[in-house]
Amino acid sequence: MKDKIGVGIIGLGTVGSGVVDILCRNGDLIKRRLGVPLKIAKIVERDLNRPLPPEISREIMTRDIKEITENPDVDIVVEVIGGFEPAESYILNAIENGKHVVTANKALLAVSGEELYRAASRRGVDLYFEGSVCGGIPIIKAIREGLAANRIESMYGIVNGTSNFIITKMTEEGKGFEDALRESQKLGYAESDPTFDIEGIDAAHKLSILVNIAFGTPVDFKEIYTEGISGISPLDISYAKEFNYKVKLLAIAKMKAGSIEARVHPTLIPNNHLIATVDGVFNAVYITGDAVGPTLFYGKGAGALPAGSAVVADIIDVARNILKGSIGRIPPASFKEENRMPLRILSIDEIESMYYFRFTVLDMPRVLSRISGILGEHEISIASVIQKGRKEGGNVPLVMMTHEAVEKNVRSALQEIDRLPVVSEKTTMIRVEEGR
Amino acid sequence: MKDKIGVGIIGLGTVGSGVVDILCRNGDLIKRRLGVPLKIAKIVERDLNRPLPPEISREIMTRDIKEITENPDVDIVVEVIGGFEPAESYILNAIENGKHVVTANKALLAVSGEELYRAASRRGVDLYFEGSVCGGIPIIKAIREGLAANRIESMYGIVNGTSNFIITKMTEEGKGFEDALRESQKLGYAESDPTFDIEGIDAAHKLSILVNIAFGTPVDFKEIYTEGISGISPLDISYAKEFNYKVKLLAIAKMKAGSIEARVHPTLIPNNHLIATVDGVFNAVYITGDAVGPTLFYGKGAGALPAGSAVVADIIDVARNILKGSIGRIPPASFKEENRMPLRILSIDEIESMYYFRFTVLDMPRVLSRISGILGEHEISIASVIQKGRKEGGNVPLVMMTHEAVEKNVRSALQEIDRLPVVSEKTTMIRVEEGR
Repeated sequence: MKDKIGVGIIGLGTVGSGVVDILCRNGDLIKRRLGVPLKIAKIVERDLNRPLPPEISREIMTRDIKEITENPDVDIVVEVIGGFEPAESYILNAIENGKHVVTANKALLAVSGEELYRAASRRGVDLYFEGSVCGGIPIIKAIREGLAANRIESMYGIVNGTSNFIITKMTEEGKGFEDALRESQKLGYAESDPTFDIEGIDAAHKLSILVNIAFGTPVDFKEIYTEGISGISPLDISYAKEFNYKVKLLAIAKMKAGSIEARVHPTLIPNNHLIATVDGVFNAVYITGDAVGPTLFYGKGAGALPAGSAVVADIIDVARNILKGSIGRIPPASFKEENRMPLRILSIDEIESMYYFRFTVLDMPRVLSRISGILGEHEISIASVIQKGRKEGGNVPLVMMTHEAVEKNVRSALQEIDRLPVVSEKTTMIRVEEGR
Repeated sequence: MKDKIGVGIIGLGTVGSGVVDILCRNGDLIKRRLGVPLKIAKIVERDLNRPLPPEISREIMTRDIKEITENPDVDIVVEVIGGFEPAESYILNAIENGKHVVTANKALLAVSGEELYRAASRRGVDLYFEGSVCGGIPIIKAIREGLAANRIESMYGIVNGTSNFIITKMTEEGKGFEDALRESQKLGYAESDPTFDIEGIDAAHKLSILVNIAFGTPVDFKEIYTEGISGISPLDISYAKEFNYKVKLLAIAKMKAGSIEARVHPTLIPNNHLIATVDGVFNAVYITGDAVGPTLFYGKGAGALPAGSAVVADIIDVARNILKGSIGRIPPASFKEENRMPLRILSIDEIESMYYFRFTVLDMPRVLSRISGILGEHEISIASVIQKGRKEGGNVPLVMMTHEAVEKNVRSALQEIDRLPVVSEKTTMIRVEEGR
């Protein structure tokens, strides 16, 4: 029986330094749980002068990746540099050399997860990635193990803290998008190029990982419909409030008659839904299983220590497998490779949803009847309408909530409506979910 | 390699029938995840005519416990009859015969957990008990595995759905306790003898299990201070509202300078705290770890399918251990037996808390100064006061929130105050938590 487990860490950025910090301060505690200590054998990092806790000798810092991937003292390789290359080559290299891998790299898993899962299974090593989704929330473990008795029916996730922080600022303080974005950049929540966060791409990466393990299907990341928050106006947030809804960037997945809905977009969700109460940089996933019913998992989605908490939990899990000889105990994709079934992901045109529309129309008689007429022709029925202000002959907002309709019909109806001479701006459309 | 895992189920009550139901309807799905099928070998039940799903042959029903505990086709024994005896003997018997055990029996674990943990470890079998706390919420897995990198700092749990349903009814509809209790009995949430639920005993059972695994210490169940909800009046709920608090029956545990606070009692918690939004029969645990920060785990705490979801997840976990030869991979008490440390549980007198007081006093001059004088002498400082109504010479409520104070001082102060001639009823005291 091994008397310690060697860990090699690639990258000493935010997550990497969180991992090192936790392994130092909670090393004793972890040893009491695991039975043997986790020992950091090597850290690969370009900048050899990065700050380190005093317990860690500088001698374990190196720029040479082989000192991790080919180091016999390293049992588990922790990849926390993020991005596609060289992360992917490093991971594949580590796997080839029989190392187990723990990663927090959602972008890489979303795009190349299948190759990595297969490589790990083929080589008989573990590949764990709790840190890739929702930081410290043990959501991957919950889906793969805690809810393993369930047929997962739906998931609604706030999985990107930056965009949730921006939307929360807009909601609570009436700020515009640009203002709120700048504030989140000042606070270090958003990067200088915030595209991945605000355009929903990061959320889509995470959703593709969750869909994969929840439904047992490979997912082509490009098939996940993705819409960000940069088009959200404080107007829409305040009208939503009048209908008792909040606007959130949700990652949504549902099982629909053997196919999958998987989409990321701003969504109106009822005020009294638990996920609507998740504010600021917090993350949460609301999952419904056929047996368990609705559940919620909530916590910090980012930051050195929360993400480090997930990565170190994975290290402990893999270490237990090493100690017990139970590598491969949980298949990376949750379902046994041979038992996965490719399920079709519905195109956005095929989905059914309720909708919020904000029309900008000339304040003239018969405008509402023209618009509702076109909606009716496309089988879209109106649930409620607010007409704001009066400005005869001027532009006024006309706000509407619909019942369930087919997205394809909604798109054609809006195209037709936006061509009307009485409609003076492109109509804003936001999908509405009850979250059940 | 085994080509199936045999399961023996003791008890076909609510949880047992949920387990059978899930194993039937999701058998294929579970097999896709696990690799081999779970097969119900035998069901022990006094009433041989209980309804069974059509897939299950009546021949597997028996009244003879040995057909499970001594059956070579049974790998995992599922104990879901609850209570102390014969459940404990059955479990010990199964362990002696080398069977792995999955149980949802919180009362038994709270009282005899140590003996059971030791018996299982000694015999080298697994003992899993996710179903014992918070039904379908995978909270035990979260603490033992998902948050294993963390030093747990505090837990606030709504872990008893019946009492939460009653309090929710009282809060939302202004009902009295007796009314709300009768309604919950009518709906089947409360049993005809509701003592365990309403007096906080069930919650204390669950808290003792959580404290044990979170802090790595054996817990003497009797040391957990327990106070139920039968003394809560709609008055207190409505005064709490005026201070922006909700009343909830919370199971609270905190690490305090190497000792443990562990207590169950009605608690005022701020309206905007996530745990305050957990209503009806739902359960939730708000756990803070030093690395992950605050997290919340939410779901249904009871019912055939939610509880069944947890039990079947355990069966799958143990089955994975059987298939991989990794029995004992996670120690039952989360920490390795030799690394557990008995921690002292603080007596209720020693805790520090904020307090809500409702005095019933004669409406006379200088009453407030008499009361606040006594509080001051006991080092209890007042945060805010509401005096309700005026009824010269009659009884009026005087409601107060304090800053942090030592419970021992509070008790002596209240004793003294209740002896004042101007105080006409025993004072109501409810502890207040900010939940951080």
